[in-house]
Amino acid sequence: MERLKRTDYCGLLRPDHVGHSVVLMGWVHRRRDHGGLIFIDLRDREGIAQTVFNPEFHPEAHKIAGHMRAEFVVAIRGRVQPRPQGTENARLPTGMIEVAVEEALILNEAKPPIFAIEEQTDVAEEIRLTYRYLDLRRPSMARNLRLRHRAAQAVHGYLDRHGFVEVETPMLTRSTPEGARDYLVPSRLNPGEFYALPQSPQLFKQLLMVAGMDRYYQIVRCFRDEDQRADRQAEFTQIDLEMSFVDRDDVLDVTEGLVAALFEAAGRPAPPRPFSRLTYAEAIDRFGLDAPDTRFGMELADLTDIVRGTEAKAFAEPIAQGGVVKGMNAKGCGAFSRAQIDGLVDYAKGFKAKGLAWFKVTADGIQSPLAKFLGPIVLERLSERLKGEEGDLLLLVADQAKTASESLGRLRVKLGRELKLIDENALAMTWVIDFPLLDYDPEQGRWQAMHHPFTAPLDEDLPFLDTDPGRVRAKAYDLVVNGQELGGGSIRIHRRDVQSQMFAALGIDADEAKAKFGFLLEALEYGAPPHGGLAFGFDRVIALLVGAGSIRDVIAFPKTQKAQDLMTQAPSPVDPRQLKELRIKLDLD
Amino acid sequence: MERLKRTDYCGLLRPDHVGHSVVLMGWVHRRRDHGGLIFIDLRDREGIAQTVFNPEFHPEAHKIAGHMRAEFVVAIRGRVQPRPQGTENARLPTGMIEVAVEEALILNEAKPPIFAIEEQTDVAEEIRLTYRYLDLRRPSMARNLRLRHRAAQAVHGYLDRHGFVEVETPMLTRSTPEGARDYLVPSRLNPGEFYALPQSPQLFKQLLMVAGMDRYYQIVRCFRDEDQRADRQAEFTQIDLEMSFVDRDDVLDVTEGLVAALFEAAGRPAPPRPFSRLTYAEAIDRFGLDAPDTRFGMELADLTDIVRGTEAKAFAEPIAQGGVVKGMNAKGCGAFSRAQIDGLVDYAKGFKAKGLAWFKVTADGIQSPLAKFLGPIVLERLSERLKGEEGDLLLLVADQAKTASESLGRLRVKLGRELKLIDENALAMTWVIDFPLLDYDPEQGRWQAMHHPFTAPLDEDLPFLDTDPGRVRAKAYDLVVNGQELGGGSIRIHRRDVQSQMFAALGIDADEAKAKFGFLLEALEYGAPPHGGLAFGFDRVIALLVGAGSIRDVIAFPKTQKAQDLMTQAPSPVDPRQLKELRIKLDLD
Repeated sequence: MERLKRTDYCGLLRPDHVGHSVVLMGWVHRRRDHGGLIFIDLRDREGIAQTVFNPEFHPEAHKIAGHMRAEFVVAIRGRVQPRPQGTENARLPTGMIEVAVEEALILNEAKPPIFAIEEQTDVAEEIRLTYRYLDLRRPSMARNLRLRHRAAQAVHGYLDRHGFVEVETPMLTRSTPEGARDYLVPSRLNPGEFYALPQSPQLFKQLLMVAGMDRYYQIVRCFRDEDQRADRQAEFTQIDLEMSFVDRDDVLDVTEGLVAALFEAAGRPAPPRPFSRLTYAEAIDRFGLDAPDTRFGMELADLTDIVRGTEAKAFAEPIAQGGVVKGMNAKGCGAFSRAQIDGLVDYAKGFKAKGLAWFKVTADGIQSPLAKFLGPIVLERLSERLKGEEGDLLLLVADQAKTASESLGRLRVKLGRELKLIDENALAMTWVIDFPLLDYDPEQGRWQAMHHPFTAPLDEDLPFLDTDPGRVRAKAYDLVVNGQELGGGSIRIHRRDVQSQMFAALGIDADEAKAKFGFLLEALEYGAPPHGGLAFGFDRVIALLVGAGSIRDVIAFPKTQKAQDLMTQAPSPVDPRQLKELRIKLDLD
Repeated sequence: MERLKRTDYCGLLRPDHVGHSVVLMGWVHRRRDHGGLIFIDLRDREGIAQTVFNPEFHPEAHKIAGHMRAEFVVAIRGRVQPRPQGTENARLPTGMIEVAVEEALILNEAKPPIFAIEEQTDVAEEIRLTYRYLDLRRPSMARNLRLRHRAAQAVHGYLDRHGFVEVETPMLTRSTPEGARDYLVPSRLNPGEFYALPQSPQLFKQLLMVAGMDRYYQIVRCFRDEDQRADRQAEFTQIDLEMSFVDRDDVLDVTEGLVAALFEAAGRPAPPRPFSRLTYAEAIDRFGLDAPDTRFGMELADLTDIVRGTEAKAFAEPIAQGGVVKGMNAKGCGAFSRAQIDGLVDYAKGFKAKGLAWFKVTADGIQSPLAKFLGPIVLERLSERLKGEEGDLLLLVADQAKTASESLGRLRVKLGRELKLIDENALAMTWVIDFPLLDYDPEQGRWQAMHHPFTAPLDEDLPFLDTDPGRVRAKAYDLVVNGQELGGGSIRIHRRDVQSQMFAALGIDADEAKAKFGFLLEALEYGAPPHGGLAFGFDRVIALLVGAGSIRDVIAFPKTQKAQDLMTQAPSPVDPRQLKELRIKLDLD
């Protein structure tokens, strides 16, 4: 038999092809034997075509088809014809035609697949990951990967059109134990020394700006050795960009265009531009979180002024310690049972709130264990500010501002979901800007960089960096989508003196700064332009675009929460000789 | 002063811009004070513009210019005007115009640069790598990186148009100690276990074919922990592709188109297609090497039949041991001194040749230390086959075929260079095909895969895999440019039984095969399509396109031969706590 050469993809055959002689290659998706004929639904990455084997006309091909089983890899040659009237399938793009097979060839046999190759599956994810090559045959997964490709192309195209140059930065880099934990790589040629896999190309992209590259981008793998929380990956992909001679709005504008290009690549309408903006302070005030879900209301309000001076100890004590009282209106939840309310209290406590006060707005007035300590006038004012109406449940937290905001903010999101206040089809893109530059870590007793130590302070706040660091806002910004941080960035420090001031504020002395970041400090002395940029999660944006529940569904070969690849069984023990060469040994005791 | 907003790149100003008010930002390339005026050549990534500061019209700007030094980062606002007649510079794209500055701003100061920012430099590479951000300001280096970007875009565009889908494969993979040495990454979450950084995504791309992705590509970082030979990098970038339902010529054809697209991106004429092809056997016969430089002649010839049976022991003994006698004609080198010839002999010995016989073709006949053992008839026939003419030097090696070929082949390239037989502007693209599948390693006493163990044998040679493995040719191919391997690939084994046979030929028993490659063997049982692909060195192809002497000149942040990054000083010692968390310790004794 002559070697066949594929002419067409199964899934792309259309009525236009009727009369064409075609060669198709693919997988047996389904076989039906009917009225002496054999029907094989042949599948390739573009879809499915029905092929018909007629023993009268082509007995040899029919005989071969008799051996075909699900997932066999086969080649057929045949002629495209309209399906007999009444057997068309309008739901399939190829549903109007079929291929009358003249010649067939089994290219490879297959054991029965571990699970069916279908659009949806309820197979355990462990099995899907172990047999990922079968899982990726499922049309939904293949579509995700192909969209990811389209999206990457869109990124390359858009950023190229906007003057960005893709520059590859090293994967074997220097460990700088700030931020998350590094993955380390022992160096054989330099015994006792280690590379780190990059958490981001942050310093390299800044050095590219010093080098005059002007606009840099990269779709780049990054690594964080964290205890794997839900939907994090040890290695993930980031769209990373940096620009010289720009201010914040330039970066935001370019990024909004990029997001629009990504939506376009996915065939979805781009979110309206400019995206809305919230300052960090406003986000915390109104939503309690710096990544607020703005798809629904139920905003928080500060109630400190109302309850100040009342007899309620639960309020008085936190206020006396400099705290605040914040609250929100769980609209229509006035009928919540005691058990339901206890659930909310526990949830708030999970975010460090010392308690959660509740007030039911009823026809008979406001009911609450705290009612008697507050008195009717205060109750009325509370309810007024929270726009309480009959049937509502008012929830209050009295605590330090951060805790009060966060616990209520989390509660808000939980209730928003449970009460179905969130339109799952809505898309709320928000920039959060003017983050604090520094964040006080009470455990370590020192200030930490809220973003990273290369973030520039707002010009007007710079004078306070030495005197009142908590007051300094940063030229930092996060892109938040539906309550999830998609990316973030900042204008960077480009002046050596400011960078030193920043390190000082972080309690990093000159020697330590030099040891860790000497090359950056030095570079800032040789003509560093003003610059800034942003990085955002490519896995996450693709998951958003395809509506995947997990980023694992948009990564070809993801790892589990224990950072294992179930298919190849990585990581694995290695040969002791390999360790010997690297001059390390195990320390498992 | 109002914050200025850049309107144009310095290097893109043209006579069309005359009369425009522009804001430029960049680096002070050069400053000249002349006739009371200050001239600043302002540089950005697009080139240089001349700016003029006139103290009469804009005293403030002129005063600021007075503070400007080389590599200061500055912003200027001014009006584009023609240069005064007689001062135009036709060699510069911006040489017809200048900018009369109305407002100036120093954005950042700079220490005098460690070395001048100029097109060419003779600064030691160590200094260039330490201050890479200065080195990359040099126009030649910036051009290299920008061409690299253009080339990557061309790859994305071409492969997308040809139906390839870019799929990202993992960086944290399983160690499979075949081939080169792996870089290992200890796993904190799985103590005692290690990831390996990929030497190539070989197995993942094959699994993507099993998954039905049909056409895959990736521009991907790969890692090899080798003793760094000249112009190798610990991490390098590869254009990696794989196709299903194809044979060799399909892969070659797609690749030739890709190479053409790369040349086009570099503004160079694409090499004529189809590229020439040599079988491995022919390459060795004619050029002695499997990566032959076909830009010049001086081909080898087999002379065994001529010298067989003569009294020259130097020939007789190797022939008796199953060896061969090969030779070539060093055209016009008949006047080489004894010292020069000794140099050639040593060079050949460096490639394991036991000796190098030489014959000078003179007006008085053929002179050689071996002449008396061969006699005039043999001498005449030798000279005839090598087309010896007066003034030529004939060089012969008698040894095992491999050694004879390789040592002469190397000598040929050396002489070709020294004798300037190579047209440095020529481009000789050659496919080398039909490689042996296996290569016998006498030290280990076993057969090894010449490419890798997933390479398919030629169909007609498959029957010999068990019986005469050395005879089996592979569906493997290398792309050779000017004597350098640019890439290579193969049609892979897609049948489980053949893959097992291959492992058996390599002395890998079933248990070992299962332990190392179980997931691949299993995948081959679930419907693997015929497939094949290729990978080629992206760094190397860019170096070829820009004519760089080293791949380090086309990598933004390369490493030294000791695999060190001189700028960031990676690798480095790490905090003992980091090792403790990873459950490893140093073993330096």
